Amino acid sequence: MTKKYKIAVIGGGSSYTPELIDGFIKKAPELPVSDIYLEDIEQGKEKLEIVGALAERMVKKAGLDINIHLTLNQEEAISGADFVVSQFRVGGLDARIRDEKIPLKYGVIGQETTGPGGFAKALRTIPVIMNICKDIQRLAPSAWLINFTNPSGIITETVLNHTKVKAVGLCNVPVNMINYVAQVFEVEMERVYIEFAGLNHLVWGQKIYLDGEDVTEKLLDILITGKNFTMKNIPDLIWDKDLIKSLGMLPCPYHRYYYMSDKMLEEEIKEASSEGTRGEVVKNIEKELFKLYKNPSLDIKPPELEKRGGALYSYAACNLIDSIANNKKDIQTVNVRNNGTILDLPEDVAIETNCIIGKNGASPLTVGHVPAKIRGLMQAVKAYEQLTVEAGVKGDYYTALQALTIHPLVPSADVAKKILDDILRQNKEFLPQFQG
Amino acid sequence: MTKKYKIAVIGGGSSYTPELIDGFIKKAPELPVSDIYLEDIEQGKEKLEIVGALAERMVKKAGLDINIHLTLNQEEAISGADFVVSQFRVGGLDARIRDEKIPLKYGVIGQETTGPGGFAKALRTIPVIMNICKDIQRLAPSAWLINFTNPSGIITETVLNHTKVKAVGLCNVPVNMINYVAQVFEVEMERVYIEFAGLNHLVWGQKIYLDGEDVTEKLLDILITGKNFTMKNIPDLIWDKDLIKSLGMLPCPYHRYYYMSDKMLEEEIKEASSEGTRGEVVKNIEKELFKLYKNPSLDIKPPELEKRGGALYSYAACNLIDSIANNKKDIQTVNVRNNGTILDLPEDVAIETNCIIGKNGASPLTVGHVPAKIRGLMQAVKAYEQLTVEAGVKGDYYTALQALTIHPLVPSADVAKKILDDILRQNKEFLPQFQG
Amino acid sequence: MTKKYKIAVIGGGSSYTPELIDGFIKKAPELPVSDIYLEDIEQGKEKLEIVGALAERMVKKAGLDINIHLTLNQEEAISGADFVVSQFRVGGLDARIRDEKIPLKYGVIGQETTGPGGFAKALRTIPVIMNICKDIQRLAPSAWLINFTNPSGIITETVLNHTKVKAVGLCNVPVNMINYVAQVFEVEMERVYIEFAGLNHLVWGQKIYLDGEDVTEKLLDILITGKNFTMKNIPDLIWDKDLIKSLGMLPCPYHRYYYMSDKMLEEEIKEASSEGTRGEVVKNIEKELFKLYKNPSLDIKPPELEKRGGALYSYAACNLIDSIANNKKDIQTVNVRNNGTILDLPEDVAIETNCIIGKNGASPLTVGHVPAKIRGLMQAVKAYEQLTVEAGVKGDYYTALQALTIHPLVPSADVAKKILDDILRQNKEFLPQFQG
Amino acid sequence: MTKKYKIAVIGGGSSYTPELIDGFIKKAPELPVSDIYLEDIEQGKEKLEIVGALAERMVKKAGLDINIHLTLNQEEAISGADFVVSQFRVGGLDARIRDEKIPLKYGVIGQETTGPGGFAKALRTIPVIMNICKDIQRLAPSAWLINFTNPSGIITETVLNHTKVKAVGLCNVPVNMINYVAQVFEVEMERVYIEFAGLNHLVWGQKIYLDGEDVTEKLLDILITGKNFTMKNIPDLIWDKDLIKSLGMLPCPYHRYYYMSDKMLEEEIKEASSEGTRGEVVKNIEKELFKLYKNPSLDIKPPELEKRGGALYSYAACNLIDSIANNKKDIQTVNVRNNGTILDLPEDVAIETNCIIGKNGASPLTVGHVPAKIRGLMQAVKAYEQLTVEAGVKGDYYTALQALTIHPLVPSADVAKKILDDILRQNKEFLPQFQG
Ligand SMILES: NC(=O)c1ccc[n+]([C@@H]2O[C@H](COP(=O)([O-])OP(=O)(O)OC[C@H]3O[C@@H](n4cnc5c(N)ncnc54)[C@H](O)[C@@H]3O)[C@@H](O)[C@H]2O)c1
Ligand SMILES: NC(=O)c1ccc[n+]([C@@H]2O[C@H](COP(=O)([O-])OP(=O)(O)OC[C@H]3O[C@@H](n4cnc5c(N)ncnc54)[C@H](O)[C@@H]3O)[C@@H](O)[C@H]2O)c1
Ligand SMILES: NC(=O)c1ccc[n+]([C@@H]2O[C@H](COP(=O)([O-])OP(=O)(O)OC[C@H]3O[C@@H](n4cnc5c(N)ncnc54)[C@H](O)[C@@H]3O)[C@@H](O)[C@H]2O)c1
Ligand SMILES: NC(=O)c1ccc[n+]([C@@H]2O[C@H](COP(=O)([O-])OP(=O)(O)OC[C@H]3O[C@@H](n4cnc5c(N)ncnc54)[C@H](O)[C@@H]3O)[C@@H](O)[C@H]2O)c1
Repeated sequence: MTKKYKIAVIGGGSSYTPELIDGFIKKAPELPVSDIYLEDIEQGKEKLEIVGALAERMVKKAGLDINIHLTLNQEEAISGADFVVSQFRVGGLDARIRDEKIPLKYGVIGQETTGPGGFAKALRTIPVIMNICKDIQRLAPSAWLINFTNPSGIITETVLNHTKVKAVGLCNVPVNMINYVAQVFEVEMERVYIEFAGLNHLVWGQKIYLDGEDVTEKLLDILITGKNFTMKNIPDLIWDKDLIKSLGMLPCPYHRYYYMSDKMLEEEIKEASSEGTRGEVVKNIEKELFKLYKNPSLDIKPPELEKRGGALYSYAACNLIDSIANNKKDIQTVNVRNNGTILDLPEDVAIETNCIIGKNGASPLTVGHVPAKIRGLMQAVKAYEQLTVEAGVKGDYYTALQALTIHPLVPSADVAKKILDDILRQNKEFLPQFQG
Repeated sequence: MTKKYKIAVIGGGSSYTPELIDGFIKKAPELPVSDIYLEDIEQGKEKLEIVGALAERMVKKAGLDINIHLTLNQEEAISGADFVVSQFRVGGLDARIRDEKIPLKYGVIGQETTGPGGFAKALRTIPVIMNICKDIQRLAPSAWLINFTNPSGIITETVLNHTKVKAVGLCNVPVNMINYVAQVFEVEMERVYIEFAGLNHLVWGQKIYLDGEDVTEKLLDILITGKNFTMKNIPDLIWDKDLIKSLGMLPCPYHRYYYMSDKMLEEEIKEASSEGTRGEVVKNIEKELFKLYKNPSLDIKPPELEKRGGALYSYAACNLIDSIANNKKDIQTVNVRNNGTILDLPEDVAIETNCIIGKNGASPLTVGHVPAKIRGLMQAVKAYEQLTVEAGVKGDYYTALQALTIHPLVPSADVAKKILDDILRQNKEFLPQFQG
Repeated sequence: MTKKYKIAVIGGGSSYTPELIDGFIKKAPELPVSDIYLEDIEQGKEKLEIVGALAERMVKKAGLDINIHLTLNQEEAISGADFVVSQFRVGGLDARIRDEKIPLKYGVIGQETTGPGGFAKALRTIPVIMNICKDIQRLAPSAWLINFTNPSGIITETVLNHTKVKAVGLCNVPVNMINYVAQVFEVEMERVYIEFAGLNHLVWGQKIYLDGEDVTEKLLDILITGKNFTMKNIPDLIWDKDLIKSLGMLPCPYHRYYYMSDKMLEEEIKEASSEGTRGEVVKNIEKELFKLYKNPSLDIKPPELEKRGGALYSYAACNLIDSIANNKKDIQTVNVRNNGTILDLPEDVAIETNCIIGKNGASPLTVGHVPAKIRGLMQAVKAYEQLTVEAGVKGDYYTALQALTIHPLVPSADVAKKILDDILRQNKEFLPQFQG
Repeated sequence: MTKKYKIAVIGGGSSYTPELIDGFIKKAPELPVSDIYLEDIEQGKEKLEIVGALAERMVKKAGLDINIHLTLNQEEAISGADFVVSQFRVGGLDARIRDEKIPLKYGVIGQETTGPGGFAKALRTIPVIMNICKDIQRLAPSAWLINFTNPSGIITETVLNHTKVKAVGLCNVPVNMINYVAQVFEVEMERVYIEFAGLNHLVWGQKIYLDGEDVTEKLLDILITGKNFTMKNIPDLIWDKDLIKSLGMLPCPYHRYYYMSDKMLEEEIKEASSEGTRGEVVKNIEKELFKLYKNPSLDIKPPELEKRGGALYSYAACNLIDSIANNKKDIQTVNVRNNGTILDLPEDVAIETNCIIGKNGASPLTVGHVPAKIRGLMQAVKAYEQLTVEAGVKGDYYTALQALTIHPLVPSADVAKKILDDILRQNKEFLPQFQG
């Protein structure tokens, strides 16, 4: 009899959950799941129940024998799990909206994961993920943590360096870049291969292959003349021709925050004062989604979910779990310990890169040195990330100040301090590590 | 009979020359010089003659047997020289003023060496220094090039990687930091030791020692409460307390451009529209200086020279030459090939660090890894510098664009391109490598 | 219409050729080959004709449309080839026998690839492979060189560092180690995965997996209590229990030359004075093989070929070619540029490690640091290999002397010199780079 | 009033002590010492008293105000010390003689510090030095440990990685190499500079300078034609011309064990069966020395001490202490943490290299990469050393076995095991870490 898996989903009340359930349904033939625990906290109870009921209808409609459990008990969810998927958001969308607005006050990019917004989210998330890992070590020591919670690279680095939990960090950006290339060339995603290198939300496609042929130049020509590429939650400003030509690589959508920070800031300010920050927009989308989810006759993933921005998330997550469970040894792009893969970064940091995925997790493919044109930014952001992990774990004010000060998007220590103090004040309840 | 040295000074008409002559006079007992060739170009002829005459009067007054030669012939100056001191400025102060003003147009720091201004200066200087090196290789192959021309780190890296000339890059910043500490503690400079690490104009004092005792904390306390520290050509904005506490090191004056770029920009804009940019101010100072220099009864270095900003330049330059000539094996802070000294930077780049100085040049002391808080910025600026060297040597537009794009002070590729195009247009006559 | 491939086999007269042909026949459904050029030199003409005729009978029997060409013209063979397989042996078995005997004279291991024997073989091979590469660059610039010629790691490193040819180095040792594990556990080879790290003929299986489960300890228990493991050309001395326990990894058969050099030397001396060195034995085996090959009714690979020692060679070679041609992205163990894969070795050396194989060749999986217990030997042998490459390319006596002197199996510079002088004398005709 | 120093000498009964006292006497003007504690164990009491009395006579004769204390109490000696000099020998000369004889039994070099002999000495010494360090941390936390106890590199590495004590490892080999060069050129030692790189007793002079001029070639010519160089305890076999030519560097005397191990082994076997091993010879020398020391009219260091082999030991030790105490910032060659100094070795190992010596200890000068010809051996021996440290600290049999197995002088795991078992048996009383 083949093994059947127990999956724990931390933050089970997320509106992304139907996407995930949909993924498990599609993978069912090769990835047999017996139990899915959707876990959430008191504040998420209502969402959890709505989403949980939809999940049950979906599974039933698919004729599958998967038990959906709804719980507020983290230990129960984790105990004996084979995979723990983390997709929670500490403080919910209200916290996100604050993350977006605080930096904007000081003339700095306000974004969920990039810049001071992601920094605040990291500080809130670190104590929670550390607590989850404690439970995993105790109650499911051989489980794999599939971290989806943003900022995914920083959270993964925290887990890799400060716990003993086996973890892989996930992001839907690389898979969306592959998807973009596939759409450009009108082929299946499987025929596209990208030599990725970088960090989470700062990953470059150094070379693009179609059926093994290098099509980088061709693709970049299309990027700058034809089909633009972005993701739902990022304003789709057009890439500058000469920037792309001189770069000679495929940037990720989040690179706009660095390569065109002036315009992105303008755009954010404009949006904030019209339809609201992205968080505010998502809040409305979510309301609509949950209305849909409540409909007892809905028993599939509703197409409206697309609007949210987590495109291909379940594709990525389920492929990852599938390849670990089934020791598939295929190549996926995930966040892992560097270990010398990129020679220009410290060995003990998380990077986002191509890995072989199997029962023993993710084994990166050697990258070597990266060219100077992407190296500096990658190193600067990584230094910020390391200080953020340290600040988040230790709750040290000065380390936090240095983290923000050296962030490429923050113009000065003075502004860093103002933003930091604002973040600490507005997030007090979520930052136990900074109290006392 | 002891060897007497021939010194060639490229850019001999510089107003700093009397400073240098003064240095050689003071060092005369241990560093016997027979000939000093002050070399300049046609446009500098007048200055050269004024300065040269003063130099002769100074030497005479000192009762020394040094022949001062004035020449516009580079080959003559270099031929058989033991030391070639480069202190020229391609395009003169007018070019500098343009370097300061172009970035300001686009809301970016406009500074002689840091940011796009230094980038433009590098592009202009690289073809000239390459040409000088060709002559050194041919006419004085065992000469040491003492490079003082800014941006000194970038120019030194160019020479180290693209020529066979033996070179050491010099800057008066480290020696001024030592001097500042000495003044704070009211001791001789010899009793102060700073563990430097970084790049030219981006060097941190990681630890400060007085007579071998670690006084870092004490010094930083004074820096933030008492005596501020800067140099003539940098607005002396006060350091933020928490920045310095969290940094735990002594920043160099130029760090203000990164740690307080917003205020520095404000300051620059204010100055530009009142007394003029630093270049414009210097232009006036220079005029006054040359008036003084002309005075046939002046036969010493006039104290007014201090205003120019090259404080301790001749102290640094003559100490360096002395230690090489006399194989002194003392410690000085200069620009050399990294060679693994700072493990977080490529091996083949120039760094500014403590070195043993002897007949074989500068041997750096091992630094190892630097902490994340200074690592990211150092790496980002170094990547920019490497691309600048490459762009300057090859005359490649795209490399130049990447260099400026990734510079931490440039907000976007778009702005980078505007600045670059403006630089290329306004410096056309000095950028043969970009023509054709 | 799918592309059909042209294969050039340098050293086509090798007795291994039927093995290779057999491999192409088996792969025919997925790897369509139109032409195989078997190329050899004048001295190998007779062998070539015998082997060529057999190859033609094999292809015919298989009902395949592959043209077998026999030629002594290297340019003809290489021109337009998609894959160039190098399996030649400069100087033939007589040279090998000398390689085995010279070191023995001085009390040193005498082996075809390990120690001074391999060193001599490398010196003879380097000028020939450089010449082949010149032809590839000129006549088939997009061809892949599949190097099988020993010492495969050294030859591959030569090609990677001294030519522009795209090359992958092949050895049948890793695949035989996988096969051994598969046999021990009585499973298909596909279910076994070994984390390899090291150099050619000095590769360790750091961890052994069966269906993704770590079975290293179990396997090593069996290795020391039950089923021994070696290859045809290496005396199968039993591994010491404590050695294996303390090593905690699977050594390769060639490790015996280092871990039990005293006994291996004894064994070699004994064999040399009874049945002859391995080369002498092979010479007889070969004679018998060629008698068989001549039989016009033989139209398959004869089972007697097994005795020669190239077990699984064609399996490895054809899998490699298949995965490149078909962009398979599966994992194979080959010799590639290190590029930081093993952090304890220089970046520009050849290592033997697990790689993803696709149209763009071999991409290694990150290894990181290796433990001290295997690091020292790996580094010592690599230093020897680098000096051998340099000596072989430049024909420099002193570099050659250092190479041999630092080889772990050579007891002293004195012995190194005697062996070197003997090698140079006895191989004069094959070492043009050392003449003059 | 200037600070006066307390010096603790662990192993105070050593026959080298008069050398050390002599050094302190000579340094007295600049290095004021108030108290010297000569500490020893019960078995060394008699030697301690003889040597102690001589020390007192020497100090008195010099007219100095230094108190000599004799004690068997380690805590008393260490408490409040400024410098702790370790020159003890666990097990005394009898243990050394066993270290020399055990390997010889198995046909392996038997030497006090190199090979299995040094390995045994390390295992005995590690528990004792760890205990001393515990006392230093508790009773003299700001003291400097000047480690002279052999194998000095391994013991220093142990202290650096397993304690918090500030330590510098000392060896008289580099200073003797400088002295040799000085003698060759008939100049003062101060005019000679050697670019050292390597490990303790495995250090190469990469370049030799006289007054800053590179005289490497000249020196090597003399080494191979004229004046040979060795030290008292190493047979002075003549260097092979071609070895030295191809090496292009100055080897240290101990390199003979690697570069001419066959002849050295022969020599050792010959000596062992005639005048006895070096340990046996020393035992006699020592007897004679102590007879001399007893003479109440002897009040200077007797010239006969030279025979022992510790030439220039006190010169090295007192210079080191002087430069630390007086923050001299001169260059000395000592054993320190690598920290990237030699890029080809791990960061956390001890290396022997040129350092700036000051109040904060030893700061190494950057070496970068070393050439392949010395790299392999250096790395192989370092791997052995690291395993020895680990085995010595943990008392792990398997790690010890791997350490010996990979030692370049040990021919096989089999021989390694025999030697290891013999060592463990014969040293049982000194190896508490291996009991239980
Ligand atoms: N890596 C990627 O590619 C990617 C893409 C999209 C979203 N995300 C991340 O996924 C996460 C979820 O996003 P979302 O928009 O669904 O968030 P959300 O606000 O809906 O939060 C999901 C759930 O987490 C719950 N939660 C909060 N704190 C919790 C805790 N301590 N324990 C358990 N549950 C807790 C909330 O109650 C909520 O129901 C976010 O961190 C987001 O950044 C990642
Ligand atoms: N590294 C430091 O610490 C430091 C400090 C101060 C100044 N500097 C640098 O020193 C240099 C000189 O500064 P300055 O203010 O005296 O400049 P300046 O404008 O007075 O120039 C000096 C001389 O160089 C001459 N010159 C221009 N091109 C030349 C060429 N191709 N060959 C020979 N001479 C040429 C000019 O005619 C002029 O007389 C500048 O590059 C400046 O940045 C460095
Ligand atoms: N990497 C591995 O796993 C592995 C295993 C077995 C054999 N090998 C290697 O494969 C090679 C072939 O072995 P073999 O025993 O068949 O050798 P062999 O002696 O039969 O030589 C093969 C052929 O090469 C020819 N040859 C010699 N010089 C040549 C040249 N300059 N150009 C073209 N052909 C030339 C010979 O005439 C001969 O016919 C050897 O180098 C051997 O070490 C490698
Ligand atoms: N690094 C170098 O350049 C160099 C050169 C020469 C000698 N040495 C080393 O110096 C050390 C001393 O050499 P030696 O020939 O004088 O040795 P030794 O045998 O005379 O020993 C010195 C003293 O140490 C004492 N001792 C032993 N165990 C002790 C302990 N636990 N605590 C305190 N004292 C203890 C002995 O009783 C003895 O009196 C040796 O380790 C030797 O290898 C090093």
